[in-house]
Amino acid sequence: MSTDIEISQATPLEPIEKIAAKVGLTPDQIEPYGHTKAKITLPLKQHHQLGKLILVTSINPTPAGEGKSTVLIGLGDGLNRLGHKTVLALREPSLGPVMGLKGGATGGGHAQVVPMEDINLHFTGDMHALTEAHDTLAALIDNHIQQGNALHLDPRQIVWKRVLDINDRALRQTVIGLGGRTSGVPRQDGFDITVASELMAVLCLSEDLTDLKRRVNRILIGYNTDKQPVTVADLKVGGAITLLLKDAIKPNLVQTLEHNPAIIHGGPFANIAHGCNSVLATQTALQLGDYAVTEAGFGADLGGEKFMDIKTPVLGKTPDAVVLVATVRALKYNGGVKRADLETENLDALKTGSANLVRHIHSMQQYGVPVVVAINRFTSDTDAEVATLTKIVEDLGVAVATTTEWADGGAGAEALAAKVVTAANQPSTFRPLVPAGADIMTQMTAITQKIYGGARVELSGKAQRQLKKFAERGWDKLPVCMAKTQYSLTDDAHQLGAPKDFTIHVREFSPRLGAGFVVALTGNVLTMPGLPKHPAALDMDIDENGTITGLF
Amino acid sequence: MSTDIEISQATPLEPIEKIAAKVGLTPDQIEPYGHTKAKITLPLKQHHQLGKLILVTSINPTPAGEGKSTVLIGLGDGLNRLGHKTVLALREPSLGPVMGLKGGATGGGHAQVVPMEDINLHFTGDMHALTEAHDTLAALIDNHIQQGNALHLDPRQIVWKRVLDINDRALRQTVIGLGGRTSGVPRQDGFDITVASELMAVLCLSEDLTDLKRRVNRILIGYNTDKQPVTVADLKVGGAITLLLKDAIKPNLVQTLEHNPAIIHGGPFANIAHGCNSVLATQTALQLGDYAVTEAGFGADLGGEKFMDIKTPVLGKTPDAVVLVATVRALKYNGGVKRADLETENLDALKTGSANLVRHIHSMQQYGVPVVVAINRFTSDTDAEVATLTKIVEDLGVAVATTTEWADGGAGAEALAAKVVTAANQPSTFRPLVPAGADIMTQMTAITQKIYGGARVELSGKAQRQLKKFAERGWDKLPVCMAKTQYSLTDDAHQLGAPKDFTIHVREFSPRLGAGFVVALTGNVLTMPGLPKHPAALDMDIDENGTITGLF
Repeated sequence: MSTDIEISQATPLEPIEKIAAKVGLTPDQIEPYGHTKAKITLPLKQHHQLGKLILVTSINPTPAGEGKSTVLIGLGDGLNRLGHKTVLALREPSLGPVMGLKGGATGGGHAQVVPMEDINLHFTGDMHALTEAHDTLAALIDNHIQQGNALHLDPRQIVWKRVLDINDRALRQTVIGLGGRTSGVPRQDGFDITVASELMAVLCLSEDLTDLKRRVNRILIGYNTDKQPVTVADLKVGGAITLLLKDAIKPNLVQTLEHNPAIIHGGPFANIAHGCNSVLATQTALQLGDYAVTEAGFGADLGGEKFMDIKTPVLGKTPDAVVLVATVRALKYNGGVKRADLETENLDALKTGSANLVRHIHSMQQYGVPVVVAINRFTSDTDAEVATLTKIVEDLGVAVATTTEWADGGAGAEALAAKVVTAANQPSTFRPLVPAGADIMTQMTAITQKIYGGARVELSGKAQRQLKKFAERGWDKLPVCMAKTQYSLTDDAHQLGAPKDFTIHVREFSPRLGAGFVVALTGNVLTMPGLPKHPAALDMDIDENGTITGLF
Repeated sequence: MSTDIEISQATPLEPIEKIAAKVGLTPDQIEPYGHTKAKITLPLKQHHQLGKLILVTSINPTPAGEGKSTVLIGLGDGLNRLGHKTVLALREPSLGPVMGLKGGATGGGHAQVVPMEDINLHFTGDMHALTEAHDTLAALIDNHIQQGNALHLDPRQIVWKRVLDINDRALRQTVIGLGGRTSGVPRQDGFDITVASELMAVLCLSEDLTDLKRRVNRILIGYNTDKQPVTVADLKVGGAITLLLKDAIKPNLVQTLEHNPAIIHGGPFANIAHGCNSVLATQTALQLGDYAVTEAGFGADLGGEKFMDIKTPVLGKTPDAVVLVATVRALKYNGGVKRADLETENLDALKTGSANLVRHIHSMQQYGVPVVVAINRFTSDTDAEVATLTKIVEDLGVAVATTTEWADGGAGAEALAAKVVTAANQPSTFRPLVPAGADIMTQMTAITQKIYGGARVELSGKAQRQLKKFAERGWDKLPVCMAKTQYSLTDDAHQLGAPKDFTIHVREFSPRLGAGFVVALTGNVLTMPGLPKHPAALDMDIDENGTITGLF
């Protein structure tokens, strides 16, 4: 059996100008990066009617694998096969994890975006531009303190850390500024992975360069010795930081293995940020395609909810249909089956575990958008299991289709594509979860009850004190961005299925004024991953012709 | 008067395919990055006779400014104006300093390489790829220690630090691995600026991907608890690190303001590394042009010497002529004139300071290569000063020309170009400074006496002990790379002119086994710069159309 990278390398790619031409982009509307990648020049002058917006999300992720990106890519190819001009809008992968565990974020099998090596490695340099911009801001902060500290920044209250696009646990907690008076002011610091940078969220929510600069200027960098917030605007470096992102803000164009256009741009964490690709990328896909298929990170409780409540208001367009990806394996895992036993038929566990899928269906339906379930079929799934799961969904009156795009490419998602077209053309009315301007507590309670299926929200003493401060500072009605484990609907990663009557515990809040939301932290959220005992890097190689092995 | 960025922005650029075609490169031999930048696909299949190689170097740099890059670019345009197909090969600028002090590394006035904003910012991502590769290796080292430390690496003897392409003094000395057992093993660490990474030197000396991987594997990362050296090969990640540099190894093609081809690739420090652009870039320029004009960092005592002694043996081609750039201002500064008084005519100081130029002429002549002096004329230079300096050079029997490329572009360097053509076509025989295989002490003594004009080399106790160890390990006959202040021929930055009978003090050695040389450290070499009190970043901005101001 061929690996993903072998399938990818065996498929001749079309020149990117040809892919661009398929959606009416002329050579001067794109900026090539090599022969098979390009950035799309902004502002885009296309003004045809916006396409239909399809959001692909999933059940809670499990170690069994759901294949959300693979389904999304297959769906795009499937829609194109049915004659609907479709443009994908995906998130940009982070390079850090690539060196740790095998497996990229570019789909799999015969449903991939290509060139997959480049997309998973440096791509068009967006992540590196974000790293450079983020750390330049950090250097300017420490330099300000060193050079007289006119803003009276409190070195103990700098909230702007540093970042690298690397899994490097040894940088989580550091002491910097050692070495005497010419080498900075000593203080505690730490590094996050680049995708956790607020700048990534800012980039993904910006409408244009002007909006980007406005958001950058709003970013909270710390507090002064009077405990008052200090922003980038106070430091007067918003222009310089924005300038470093002048190319990163432009969406990237590549192709699927079936030579359909895919935009890959922006990839903020779906826990401490909103987990959706850029507003500009999705807008571009909507302007170029009759259908734009996009995704959100982790499950419908995290990325899905944030797409609806954080991204949609900025995007100015609500989804016309939601695709919920589930697998028999993952639902059996949710039903209590151990990882080693997932290939054995188990209808009872499947029925029990399906509660997780049902919960997510109900969650998404509350937004007033039609839901279609995609069962991403694995070879070990039995016919009885697939039939059982299909019936569970159909009994709810929800459309469902089985997909096999991993083995069959877009042909394996044509049935799903047909159901998505039907759903997206139904009359529907988007309903926000809470009215605009609701306070943070109201928002969190609504999310807990209506999306997670829980009962209540409890605040730590610190979180309570923060909310009071936020009210004084006018931050109390910003959208809330929940930072919660992706593995459970609750804030405890081990509670699978669809728990009820539980409490969400909010430990603390983190204001992300540039992104325009407040992160509510439940439990510990790791913002700098580590490498495993046998990192994938040990098995990678490149030969004299530049052919890569061991990457995926 | 227009600024550099205004002149650059006012000049319409030609499409990079057109620039490539001027030197016979077809569209499939380049990989475009936008419309005016490209990488050249390797291996290059051109096999015409190699062009003439012109090395541009200078007197010791002073705060008065020499304009070496500007002369180089003007010379290239001048040669092209005279009908000689000429390709430039320049170093790639570092982004870190751009945020600190105004002024890029892309020439000035009407002698610039463009698009200057892009070249000075992220360009084609080479620096970022190096940062990522360097820090990925660092993360893999700390992960190895964390995950059982099978190689018994001594955390107190890790020589592989971390890097960022940012001026950030607060990262010079850090403590990492804090936060308990899941967050690494605490140890002292620090960050250098990316151009100081050994990987930059490795990239610049590699002949191809295979050589790059061989060099990466040789890199010394630290010592084990038995004090034995440990390399990248021992860690088994040479393939992964090389793979991250697969695009960075390809030379970048841009154009001058006069639309002549310029290759800009690689830029290692000229003190702790060899300070020359990549071997692949220079080879490519030689394969594409009848003349290849290249440069080396700082003055002839640093970059010039290293070009001859470190780069030339790898390049397999010796220079056909050396251009030594000098200015009246810088020589007056060397003659004792204060910075504020440089615009006042002072023939005596000029004569005294010219000793610096004469020393560098003699140094370069020892390699058996014809020398041409370029007097880069500033508006404040008087006719008498220029005539005096011209006579000093002519009296040595050395060719000399005055240039005004800053004001006049290539037309201002035609006289220089004509003299360079004459010199490069003289019969000449390259003579190395010392025979291949000479030991480190012999090399250092020869450099001190024949290049710096000094008398002797003194080793610290530590350096003496290191040399003994190196002999045991077979490192004692590697080429030596002197790390010395660029401001003086001695190891004391304040001794201007051409001191005599001085001692060079070697504090310690740093083996760079991947690059293939041993760095001899004299005095303190700062490998992570800081930002000034008023960083240039404070004056930068970008408007809604992406137009940049305040960058230069």
